[in-house]
Parts: sequence; structure tokens; C-alpha cells
Amino acid sequence: MPPPPTTPILKDLTISNITENVHLINAQTPSPRLLYILERLVTHLHDFARETRLSTPEWMAGIEFLTAVGQKCTDVRQEFILLSDTLGLSLLVDAISHPKPPASTEGTVLGPYHTHAAPDVELGESITVDPEGERLLCVCSVRDTAGRPVEGVKVDVWETDSKGVYDVQYEGWTGEKADGRAVLRTDAEGRFWYRAIVPVPYRIPEDGPVGKMLKLLGRHPWRPSHMHFMFEKPGYDHLITALYLRGDPYETTDAVFGVKESLIVDLGVVSAEQAAQYGVEEGTKLLTYDFVLVSEAETRRLRDEEARKAMKALGRDDMLIIDGLPVPDVD
Amino acid sequence: MPPPPTTPILKDLTISNITENVHLINAQTPSPRLLYILERLVTHLHDFARETRLSTPEWMAGIEFLTAVGQKCTDVRQEFILLSDTLGLSLLVDAISHPKPPASTEGTVLGPYHTHAAPDVELGESITVDPEGERLLCVCSVRDTAGRPVEGVKVDVWETDSKGVYDVQYEGWTGEKADGRAVLRTDAEGRFWYRAIVPVPYRIPEDGPVGKMLKLLGRHPWRPSHMHFMFEKPGYDHLITALYLRGDPYETTDAVFGVKESLIVDLGVVSAEQAAQYGVEEGTKLLTYDFVLVSEAETRRLRDEEARKAMKALGRDDMLIIDGLPVPDVD
Repeated sequence: MPPPPTTPILKDLTISNITENVHLINAQTPSPRLLYILERLVTHLHDFARETRLSTPEWMAGIEFLTAVGQKCTDVRQEFILLSDTLGLSLLVDAISHPKPPASTEGTVLGPYHTHAAPDVELGESITVDPEGERLLCVCSVRDTAGRPVEGVKVDVWETDSKGVYDVQYEGWTGEKADGRAVLRTDAEGRFWYRAIVPVPYRIPEDGPVGKMLKLLGRHPWRPSHMHFMFEKPGYDHLITALYLRGDPYETTDAVFGVKESLIVDLGVVSAEQAAQYGVEEGTKLLTYDFVLVSEAETRRLRDEEARKAMKALGRDDMLIIDGLPVPDVD
Repeated sequence: MPPPPTTPILKDLTISNITENVHLINAQTPSPRLLYILERLVTHLHDFARETRLSTPEWMAGIEFLTAVGQKCTDVRQEFILLSDTLGLSLLVDAISHPKPPASTEGTVLGPYHTHAAPDVELGESITVDPEGERLLCVCSVRDTAGRPVEGVKVDVWETDSKGVYDVQYEGWTGEKADGRAVLRTDAEGRFWYRAIVPVPYRIPEDGPVGKMLKLLGRHPWRPSHMHFMFEKPGYDHLITALYLRGDPYETTDAVFGVKESLIVDLGVVSAEQAAQYGVEEGTKLLTYDFVLVSEAETRRLRDEEARKAMKALGRDDMLIIDGLPVPDVD
């Protein structure tokens, strides 16, 4: 437990002393981790205002912007995640939380369209009910970093329909009308396969405050064609990733910064033999990928190592590292 | 106008290169000021995540917190201003925007309860319709930094009722039912006077996410007794301030950091002569204060000077200062 904080005298606060005094009053929290998060948050928030000389009208514009972002959120629309995505924060947090050793599959942004209301489907089934869209067979595998197949991994997959719209974006969507999403399980050889449609590029929602921000910044709202994947199995680090189609017009300007070279794929075509094996037409587009999961223990080790480096760079020798999270050593 | 930005290749972004790439894509904005604000915002946001090693669940808790703050806002409740107030940002922005030379009246936080729906009242009238509360006569003046009275200043005053509640906080409040607020004008001698009630301490709203945050931080929600003032006249810097009552139990722990020694007053009592002059009972509590406004020109000079110092401290010699606002020199 932290020692009882010195109660500050909160009076005559100025540009130069307000930050340390806000830290002192916040130091009353019994949570050392919250203490550290608030200390860094308040320091950066105040430095931002000091360095920009933020004016009262600009501050008010910020208040109104954040309010509009909050008010745009619904059960199926998360404008703050969109803001985090478009400012590069989401990609950064994923990279910090899920460090990857070489030869494992890289992670990328979750995005705001994952939902737990996805149906369980058997291997080989279709995840799409869209009559349009180019047919796609996906044949993938999941291994560990030693190359061993991983059985029984829960695999969430999701993509837009042929118009570039996720099912949850349609008015009146309910969990019963899933399209373009499913949950599968890898077999004893770590394999999973399913039928889908070839992903298409789409625009992130532009009718809210984040769309307005992108316009002011002269940025386009497009994401390159991709399919999302999420892998879960006890003992393995949770992997959120996506595969991107090579040659997409937005390959190098993804509005949410998610593209990684190792996640770009060239689609193949289904051979006569595969057509018979998977029950699809010969010549159907084919997506194959071998995902590599990292153990929780290895991830924890890497996270701790990176956190220690970051604390060293910050000159903070007063910190403990607990599962990658720096916490003040208050004993 | 800024030069056309180098179009970045947004691929393979990592903990160490994402920030510069978000800057590059944002540099497409035609507004140099927005460019600088976003550059500082993204730098601090990313550094915050890197220095805390922000975890995915913590990031999600932040997303949910900000969403709840936005959704708590209504026409008469501004939870984001409350958040800004309780993190010390509001006080800081006021200090940056409205630098004060010695011997002028200091500013302080606006708070979320100012409204433009305040009635104009004549000098000497009452601003309260509350039958409870200790009566108070306020007799004040407004001068410039040379000591000359300033005539025709628009003076907004507002305070809570005797229960510590602002009129706008009551369910079903409309602009027609003002209580504890008014707009007055100074007379030829720069004076203004009115009847009110002695301010009482009050709790900032605790039923929203900001209240929850204060609880987690072990902080109380009280503001010491005070009366708000806002002064406007062309040629003078807009002054937002408040007067605090000496000896209030929350004098040194204001939840929003607003108290300044120069703004603390000792109440007096109305003499027989004053009672006759102002039409109130002898012995009524008396608040007197001489406010000093700063010219816009002097404020602008100070703002520029402070901004130049801040840019020097940051090592930014690429900035122009325009009315105190740093803007990249892109010519």
C-alpha cells in the first residue's frame, strides 16, 4: 500500500505548479497502478496545453468534439474506438500489450466491429449469407512457435459484406442476423477452413465527429480489403489480427494504420483436387495462411522486458514491473 | 500554406515508428495551427501509452469511461468540463489564455454552470429568489490597471441557492426561472452592486463517471463557498473569476483547483449609513471587492511573451507566435 500522501494546499495554482499539485491530490488513491496512470495522464494533458498554449476557444472546441464523440456511441457504434484507431493509439496499444517474438504472427487493430454475437459454425461451412461478392475458400492452420499444430483454438473471423458494410452497421441489426462472421475451432492438426467472400475496401463511418476530423486533416476514410481474425486458447496469448489483400488501392494508406507486410496475402485459386476435398468449385479464390501463436509465458517475458526498457528510458528507477505493467514501488 | 506533405507509406507500424507516421498523414491538413495541435496531441497520447505500457483492458476501460462522460452530457450538464476541471486542465487553460500583470485581478475556472440565460438586472436589485440563505449585499467596482474606473462593463454574476444547487441543476429548468444569476452593468464610476445570498460550499455532481473517478482517487467532491464573476467590455481582456469566503472548510482542497489567495474575501457587515444607501437592513453581510481589468493589448503582449518562452523551452525555433498561439512557420 502507498504511504499516506502529503495533503497539498491547493491554492494559488499556476501554469508552473498546477501539475505537481494535481499529482499530490490524486496520490490519495489506494491503487498504485491508477496512481501511475493518472500521474502520466495529467503530466501529458498539462504539457499538451502548455506546449500548444491552448486557447479557451480551442479548449471549448475540444470539449465539444469529445462530447459529440461520446454521444455518437451506441450499442453497435463505438466512435471513441474509431477515434483511437484513426489516431494510431489502437495499433500502438496492441503492439505494447501483445509483443511478438520473430516468426510468430503479428497482431493488428481490432476495430469497432467485432461482436460476441457470432454463430458457431462447423469447419467447411459458409460464414456469409450475401448472394453477391466473389466466393472465397479460406484454408488456414494454427501452430505454436515450435511449429506444433494447436488444436481446439477458438477462432473468430469477421469481414464486411460485398458492399463493404458489416452486418452490425445495418439499421435494426440483431444478433440473430449474423452475416460475414463466425466462430470456428481448429481440428487436431490445428487446421480450420470455411467459405466466405473476397474482402473489399470500405470507408470507416464518416457521418460522425471522427469523420469530420479526418476531413479537416485532409485524410481519406478508406481501409484496404481485409479479413479479421481473433484466436483464443488458454495458455496462448490472445491474438487479434487481420489479413490484407496485396495490391489493394489503400494498401499503404489504411485510415487506421493496421497493415503489416507479414499480413498481406496473395489469393490463390482452388485446384480440382481441393474443389473435391472442400466441396467448392474449381477456380474459386483461395486464401491460405499459417498463423503462429505465442505462449502466454513467452508473451509475459517479452512484455516485462519491454516495460523495463521503457522505464529505464524514462529514468524511473522507482517502478516495479508486474505482468508488463509498471507500478510504483511504494514499500 | 504548408508545403505538400511527403505521403508516408503506412505499413509495418510499430511502437517506435507509429507516432512519426501519424504526424505525416495528419500533415495533409491545410491549417498550420491544427497541424501543430495534432502533432502535440498525438505525441503526448502515444507517449502516455508507451510510458504506462497501457494494456488492452485498461485502454478499453478508458474508452468506456470517455463514452460514459460524453453520454452524461445534456444541454445543462457538461461532464467533460467537469472532467477538465477536476484534472486541473481548466485552471491551466485559463492561466495560459489570460495571463495577468501584477495588481490585476486573477482569473479562475469558469465551471460548468454559467449560462447565457441570465436576466439583466438594475444596480441594487436582488439576483436571488431563494427565501432561505443568509442575505448578502455586494458592493464592487471595476478599474483598469492605471486605477481608472471602467464604465459600462457587462458583469455576469452567478452562485448556488442556499442548498448549494445552481438553478440549471434542477429538473425541468428553463431559462425563464433564473435564480442566483444576473447580468449587470457598471456605472460611470465603475461601480456595481446587488443583493444576493452568502455562498455556501457545494458538491460537484457525483452521479456520473467523473464522480466515480474522484471516488477511485480518494478525492472529495466539494468546492468551497464562492461567487462567480465574468467581465466583458471591448478593449479589455475577458475576465472569468470568482471570490471565495475566507475560512471555508474546503478553502485549501477545492475539487477543481480554483482558489487563489487574492480572490479570498472576508465578509463585512452593512453599516447604518450603507443600510440607508442601499436599502438593506443594517448588519446584513457585506461583500466588497475592487476588480482590476487588463487591456486586450497588454494581455496580447503577455501571451506572446509567455508563448515565446514556452517555444524556447521546447527547443522549437520553427514556430511563429500569432496572438499567443504557436503556429509552424511553413514559408
